[in-house]
Amino acid sequence: MTGAKLFFKCENFQRMGAFKMRGAIHAILKLSDEQKQAGVITHSSGNFGQAISLAARTLGVTAYVVMPQNAPQVKKEAVASYGGIITECESTLEAREATAARIGMEKGATFLHPSNNTDVILGNATVAIELLQEKPELDIIICPVGGGGLLAGTALAVHYFGNGCKAIAGEPAAADDAYRSLQSGKIETNDRALTIADGLRTHLGNKNFPVIKKHVSEIIRVEESEIIESLKCIWERMKIVVEPSSAVSFAAILKQPQTFKNKRVGVILSGGNVDLSNLPF
Amino acid sequence: MTGAKLFFKCENFQRMGAFKMRGAIHAILKLSDEQKQAGVITHSSGNFGQAISLAARTLGVTAYVVMPQNAPQVKKEAVASYGGIITECESTLEAREATAARIGMEKGATFLHPSNNTDVILGNATVAIELLQEKPELDIIICPVGGGGLLAGTALAVHYFGNGCKAIAGEPAAADDAYRSLQSGKIETNDRALTIADGLRTHLGNKNFPVIKKHVSEIIRVEESEIIESLKCIWERMKIVVEPSSAVSFAAILKQPQTFKNKRVGVILSGGNVDLSNLPF
Repeated sequence: MTGAKLFFKCENFQRMGAFKMRGAIHAILKLSDEQKQAGVITHSSGNFGQAISLAARTLGVTAYVVMPQNAPQVKKEAVASYGGIITECESTLEAREATAARIGMEKGATFLHPSNNTDVILGNATVAIELLQEKPELDIIICPVGGGGLLAGTALAVHYFGNGCKAIAGEPAAADDAYRSLQSGKIETNDRALTIADGLRTHLGNKNFPVIKKHVSEIIRVEESEIIESLKCIWERMKIVVEPSSAVSFAAILKQPQTFKNKRVGVILSGGNVDLSNLPF
Repeated sequence: MTGAKLFFKCENFQRMGAFKMRGAIHAILKLSDEQKQAGVITHSSGNFGQAISLAARTLGVTAYVVMPQNAPQVKKEAVASYGGIITECESTLEAREATAARIGMEKGATFLHPSNNTDVILGNATVAIELLQEKPELDIIICPVGGGGLLAGTALAVHYFGNGCKAIAGEPAAADDAYRSLQSGKIETNDRALTIADGLRTHLGNKNFPVIKKHVSEIIRVEESEIIESLKCIWERMKIVVEPSSAVSFAAILKQPQTFKNKRVGVILSGGNVDLSNLPF
């Protein structure tokens, strides 16, 4: 279909359903004993809140998760079911940051950012490391880019463990801050980020942008209709449930096949947490 | 969740997306060279038409598939894409049988029934054989029952290769002909079969019923809402795409957990061909 040989890394089968578990576990493992005792805190309306909750519980650590009041009930329940202690706040970024800072002060908990944290990035790097251990001859590894935590980890893994391998990212055109950041040389943001790929609406940070600038070959932008087409193809042909953010990698290959033709390509499917009552087909 | 240890056999990952490929391949392999030259014929609106088409093409044999005019376009396209030669007919069983008989006469093609054919049944038996090869200590293997071809194969495999293992089936209460057949001792049919499990609307046949009567321990009936609940759970938790018929096995375990408690259970997920534009959630 693509003229390339594709090897899919199915992070939808990861614990809690997404690669985020890797960064969360690694970041908590790197804390000192006193830090672990005091707990960790993050603000997230998505997978990272669940990842921190499950990773913390697995390691006997308390996790505080700040979530916007209007976050879907199913996501609040998921965080709670993994043992995360939820504090609700207004849905602005300012309110989330302020609430997280306040609880961090009160509890002495260490703040862990979902994507702009070196230990989170290094944990995420294990996705591409495992791909390269299984397929050392990969020419390209492609992943989606949102906050940049997965892409930075992937780029580092490819640089240090690949054999002439390149890191490429797919990004929704409707939230193409990373594409524009590579062009302008500074971190760009999105005015609106109306993409179905809800894990990719955020922008890069000062920890991951330098890595991405140095080690990422290209960012390929895809339209919403192309993401949905890719999603449908993965569900129908591969018979696996992945979330729209995951489909962005494969959509980029379908969009620009000449980049991948006759290449061996590792394709990171980042997660599988979808709301079945709200599907685009 | 169930109190049992479950091992899922994912026939949704099988070629053409369902276990039917096994019976189709085996039945064609058992034909004489002259029979292979003349081709095979079946009537099917579902997975078996696709299975026969792909199996035949794989073995260099011509496949004729009789399909009702009102079969979904997507199913006709799937059969055609696998190389099957389609003849359309009225949507009654009589028309399908008459058309198949006529083409069989004209072409000299061998008729293969989707479920009531010994070689199809023996091919289907390899699902449970593989499960038992991987997990010889299974106490129970459970599969869905529709036409009876998978259940008869499973029952034979369990009888000849299991170690005290039992064969149990799940069946939609809305098409519970197999349950009633075991009770009455003769083949019962369904007046209506308004179940979402579209692969399970048919009834048993004279080849598979004696095997089922002799070697199946129990048939557990499940309601439509239970099938949908099971389907949703498999999609959400296991992150795989299975068809409603597949979810009947797991629904039966959830319905009657005392039968499975503390047991090692092989659960056959029969296929993954779904119409994404027509999901029940």
